[in-house]
Amino acid sequence: MTSDTATEVTDDMFDIMKSASRKDDVFGIDPSVNELEHHVAKLFGHEASLFCASGSMTNQLGLRTLLTQPPHSVLCDSRSHIYLYECGGLAYHSQAGLTPTLPKNELYLTAEDVQANIVTDDLCGALTKVIALENTLNGTVMPLDELQRIHTFARKQNIKLHLDGARIWNASQATGVALADYGQLFDTISVCVSKGVGAPIGSLVIGSSEIIRKARHLRKLMGGGWRQAGLLAKVAHHCIDTVVPTMPETHRLTKKLATKLEALGMRTLLPVDTNMVFLETAPLSIVELADALHEHNIVISRDEGSVTRLVLHHQIDAKAVDDFIRVASKLVQAKVDAKFSLPPSSKEAVDISKAYPTASVKL
Amino acid sequence: MTSDTATEVTDDMFDIMKSASRKDDVFGIDPSVNELEHHVAKLFGHEASLFCASGSMTNQLGLRTLLTQPPHSVLCDSRSHIYLYECGGLAYHSQAGLTPTLPKNELYLTAEDVQANIVTDDLCGALTKVIALENTLNGTVMPLDELQRIHTFARKQNIKLHLDGARIWNASQATGVALADYGQLFDTISVCVSKGVGAPIGSLVIGSSEIIRKARHLRKLMGGGWRQAGLLAKVAHHCIDTVVPTMPETHRLTKKLATKLEALGMRTLLPVDTNMVFLETAPLSIVELADALHEHNIVISRDEGSVTRLVLHHQIDAKAVDDFIRVASKLVQAKVDAKFSLPPSSKEAVDISKAYPTASVKL
Amino acid sequence: MTSDTATEVTDDMFDIMKSASRKDDVFGIDPSVNELEHHVAKLFGHEASLFCASGSMTNQLGLRTLLTQPPHSVLCDSRSHIYLYECGGLAYHSQAGLTPTLPKNELYLTAEDVQANIVTDDLCGALTKVIALENTLNGTVMPLDELQRIHTFARKQNIKLHLDGARIWNASQATGVALADYGQLFDTISVCVSKGVGAPIGSLVIGSSEIIRKARHLRKLMGGGWRQAGLLAKVAHHCIDTVVPTMPETHRLTKKLATKLEALGMRTLLPVDTNMVFLETAPLSIVELADALHEHNIVISRDEGSVTRLVLHHQIDAKAVDDFIRVASKLVQAKVDAKFSLPPSSKEAVDISKAYPTASVKL
Amino acid sequence: MTSDTATEVTDDMFDIMKSASRKDDVFGIDPSVNELEHHVAKLFGHEASLFCASGSMTNQLGLRTLLTQPPHSVLCDSRSHIYLYECGGLAYHSQAGLTPTLPKNELYLTAEDVQANIVTDDLCGALTKVIALENTLNGTVMPLDELQRIHTFARKQNIKLHLDGARIWNASQATGVALADYGQLFDTISVCVSKGVGAPIGSLVIGSSEIIRKARHLRKLMGGGWRQAGLLAKVAHHCIDTVVPTMPETHRLTKKLATKLEALGMRTLLPVDTNMVFLETAPLSIVELADALHEHNIVISRDEGSVTRLVLHHQIDAKAVDDFIRVASKLVQAKVDAKFSLPPSSKEAVDISKAYPTASVKL
Repeated sequence: MTSDTATEVTDDMFDIMKSASRKDDVFGIDPSVNELEHHVAKLFGHEASLFCASGSMTNQLGLRTLLTQPPHSVLCDSRSHIYLYECGGLAYHSQAGLTPTLPKNELYLTAEDVQANIVTDDLCGALTKVIALENTLNGTVMPLDELQRIHTFARKQNIKLHLDGARIWNASQATGVALADYGQLFDTISVCVSKGVGAPIGSLVIGSSEIIRKARHLRKLMGGGWRQAGLLAKVAHHCIDTVVPTMPETHRLTKKLATKLEALGMRTLLPVDTNMVFLETAPLSIVELADALHEHNIVISRDEGSVTRLVLHHQIDAKAVDDFIRVASKLVQAKVDAKFSLPPSSKEAVDISKAYPTASVKL
Repeated sequence: MTSDTATEVTDDMFDIMKSASRKDDVFGIDPSVNELEHHVAKLFGHEASLFCASGSMTNQLGLRTLLTQPPHSVLCDSRSHIYLYECGGLAYHSQAGLTPTLPKNELYLTAEDVQANIVTDDLCGALTKVIALENTLNGTVMPLDELQRIHTFARKQNIKLHLDGARIWNASQATGVALADYGQLFDTISVCVSKGVGAPIGSLVIGSSEIIRKARHLRKLMGGGWRQAGLLAKVAHHCIDTVVPTMPETHRLTKKLATKLEALGMRTLLPVDTNMVFLETAPLSIVELADALHEHNIVISRDEGSVTRLVLHHQIDAKAVDDFIRVASKLVQAKVDAKFSLPPSSKEAVDISKAYPTASVKL
Repeated sequence: MTSDTATEVTDDMFDIMKSASRKDDVFGIDPSVNELEHHVAKLFGHEASLFCASGSMTNQLGLRTLLTQPPHSVLCDSRSHIYLYECGGLAYHSQAGLTPTLPKNELYLTAEDVQANIVTDDLCGALTKVIALENTLNGTVMPLDELQRIHTFARKQNIKLHLDGARIWNASQATGVALADYGQLFDTISVCVSKGVGAPIGSLVIGSSEIIRKARHLRKLMGGGWRQAGLLAKVAHHCIDTVVPTMPETHRLTKKLATKLEALGMRTLLPVDTNMVFLETAPLSIVELADALHEHNIVISRDEGSVTRLVLHHQIDAKAVDDFIRVASKLVQAKVDAKFSLPPSSKEAVDISKAYPTASVKL
Repeated sequence: MTSDTATEVTDDMFDIMKSASRKDDVFGIDPSVNELEHHVAKLFGHEASLFCASGSMTNQLGLRTLLTQPPHSVLCDSRSHIYLYECGGLAYHSQAGLTPTLPKNELYLTAEDVQANIVTDDLCGALTKVIALENTLNGTVMPLDELQRIHTFARKQNIKLHLDGARIWNASQATGVALADYGQLFDTISVCVSKGVGAPIGSLVIGSSEIIRKARHLRKLMGGGWRQAGLLAKVAHHCIDTVVPTMPETHRLTKKLATKLEALGMRTLLPVDTNMVFLETAPLSIVELADALHEHNIVISRDEGSVTRLVLHHQIDAKAVDDFIRVASKLVQAKVDAKFSLPPSSKEAVDISKAYPTASVKL
């Protein structure tokens, strides 16, 4: 339960790969790749998309196509992937500054957050040219109407919009909002097929034909042009069709896990909208919980501090969740027995920044 | 009183310029430039320095020489010049990310702030390779012992240190700490001679001979090599010798101004350590205060909001400060007379971010 | 016969993929990837290597790890991949200039070429920090002793050496020089497994442990970190073991093809050292030759001009070569019959630049 | 006679500086700077211009404003300043590749040279987005009709045009072509006032209001914003008005010098169109010539090899030229007397690349 990137390739995927076309995607002539790109573009209501090796690549491609000349900058959530987990890629690829912004509501950026933090100083500042949102972020869904408000504001200011939609599939499945309804609000969208979707490798960047034409040329420049990629595209296509529909069940299990753990006196730090739980493991330490779970083949992140992030996906079944709950329950009961009393549940304000320490790896 | 960049060139400076050498600084052979560079390096206890056209150039040169290969990043105060007022230069010049950090004490960064925010994730992060401090920042002096604590931490972590010392002259004059005592804590230092020091143009970057040799080559690359710069160097040298010693008087006048305005019921938002006052002008509006002052040839920033920044320098004399106090006093008295009561002084917490809105120009 | 990138994935490869490990290569924990990287490093006598999505990526990674601070530049053959076919990647990734140099002997760079063209102007120039060689280039093998002379010169000048060895396999097989003997002359080496080696996707960059550690972090920054890459690594490993040993036969067929075509009065513009023929098709036009071959399922490049590049690989067999010769022979004979005389073979000097026009795609 | 950058600042310039306005050019509010910028823009038939610290800065600003997103590249003469003497600035500032092109006529680029060398490969190449010409280059004037032919070609291809016009003043004075007639052919123009024009510091970039607005923001980003620059602008303005009209006399003296030296049996390698002579000093060595001239206070470049570049400007008078001729004449006569015969004038082809070795400093 460390990450939804930790899905396993299954045997049947190799038969699917075998059925793929085997042409050269550098030249854009592989049918399986082209079908996937066409399919995903349509899902999001856009003209085109491009299949790439990673979500960092598709995020950077999306941003690079929207940015032209410096001085320029991008506003994003200060907990976002492009700020924390892409090695400072925006500076490298786009010569652009970043304005990391912590949401006032501690959940998601609002139009007010955006308005208060965009750079408008055209003498000494790097003007905000793109707002980059992430949905879901820490498992939290951004409400559609807030996205629409930000969209309206951005359009007025002539600012472009990029979505890091690595987990937009989860948002859509959790809310019932169609992918295309999200899609129409953004100029470029990055989606991942090797996180919750379960394919071995790949992400796509989505946009207009003109933007994707540019992105294709830029991908070559970045070193991301790949040859016989059809086999990866075919299996990605299959996973989108078959795994995405299972997400509601994953979300249900996640919710169940959170509820039961809260019943044991543990605290969750963010709403459990989709497939993640940010868990304060007290009265247990993370280490003792992790050790006990390990015996049941359940792996959790052993971040320093008192909070761990649990991430579920379609290969984690109801039994694993039940095992988790039983293990945790036993450990807590043992503490109770030993001390004749539950420790008082902590009531102090929780610092959100602790829930997502910048120094630890969260993908 | 809008900025200490607003000093005026005086007639006698042209005689000083005339006495300068007239050789080519691109080739490094102008005696007046070389003397200035030698003089400033010695003041800060370093081997060498380089005379340049602006503080943005010397900051970026200092940082560029300390940074080698990406992924890499720089940690700085989120209110600092390199984050807000250099057009996103770090991304452009150094392909580097930034970690803007708001000090917990709302005054200056501490070793604890630095430790809590440096990037150590060597898989997905851009490792912190330089800590860039600014002293003074918003007129606030960083205590020497805090600088030493950060220095000790950085050395242990093998992180380099850069000082944006555009106003380090003020810090030194206010505290009595020698420039060389500040200098020894940093690998590179940028100082400005066209802010409070009063020269028409120029900044210097200071460091080891090796670093300054690199900086000279980089300056050419940035487009900052200039030909017969001796005349500017000579007048800068003169200003350092003659204007810096007048700073204590400027600080005394600044303190006096702040104290008197507070006595009128106005609030200052930051300590008045040197030559700046961040003033909440209530019960007056900034506009009415600015209009009234304008009649006495005193210009202040008309930032939106309720806070204005006042900056003094050696060309603002005691009379101007007295005029300011008298004008403000009259206006407040008129309000009192009109309303028979002072408005209640606001006691709510003040949001520091309002004291330095990112969208307005503060140099 | 358009390129050795045009190899086809075969059915049996999918069984090999299925047998691969299925862990996450972003975290460096996939055994199949690690085995491949270890194997290739050892082949070239280096400590480590990194498996990536393309040769552009591994070239740029190799160069980026060797370059530190600008101003800096790379010297290369003016017909090389990094100058012509990587979208200007060196500027983008490394902020570095290029010194494209045409070999005096019109075949390969010599130590004299290098010495005459490196940048040593440390005032206004971008000093040459890396010499990047390509072997083979246009199918031409660089002699080992010339490589050694360049190596000796570079070491004296403290200049690093990178090898674009996309086709170093061919050079080694054609000359009998061990890969490790080439390897020891370079700081970084890029090799390709999706050209003549026949794997669907992939290249590797090779170097010291320290360099590859940096390259891994840079790969993430470039967007090239990929998840379950074991399946691609396993099949690449297999292709290296099985396809490389077939290259001598490919070279023999290439030589045969060239010799027969020359016997028909056509000219070859470069020595036929390995698997490429640069063919002046006169007395035939490229179009009529290409059309006739197409009927026998042989595809050749229809570059504008009078020269075409033929590239053979292990999936082009003796029959295809015989078909080619027969088709060409018939067409030439028809011309003879029609005109009662062969056109005079042109004896003018041939401009090498025409053999490799910059505007056309040659990978 | 080493360079026209070697002009001396004169005493009367300080009175001119004193008469300048003393406002802040970072805010664009200094009248003397604004007048200069307006004046120069008008001279070249454009809307606006920007006064900067160096020609490298104005060249890079011009190119940066014309370039938007990579992959992109610039075509230029392989002997041009932006390729050889700006530290690889194009890669650094614009993430752009360069296509250095040697003119077929060995004097100046033609439309045919440009057409044959632009990058049109939109898959693997960095498309040519700007053609950058330099006039004069090595003292050679580009014919107006050739500039027009290149302009026509570029407009058809939707390629922008930049002029490095550091010495366009000389071209205009030598040909009688108005500056505005050159100006209308280019999107951006860089001109220098600290070379033959004789001001201590400065260059300007010229273009449309929109381009110069961008350039001003970019200049801040590059670190080139300067404060009280009025004094430099005023003296630059004065030099343009007074020194440019003296160029025909400088050209006359240059021609005279070249003719007399040729009469002594020396060879000149390029046409003497303006103020430069590329001189093969045989039968004398450069060292003996330079030593003898040094006694008459004439300094020439002691480049390695057999060719030296002589550059004249308005501060080199007829007497200095006569002294040069007399000194050279005596030395040659001494050789004749010693050997009873002049050495045979060399008749072999001269390699143009030797006339301008990349490793030596030529500004």
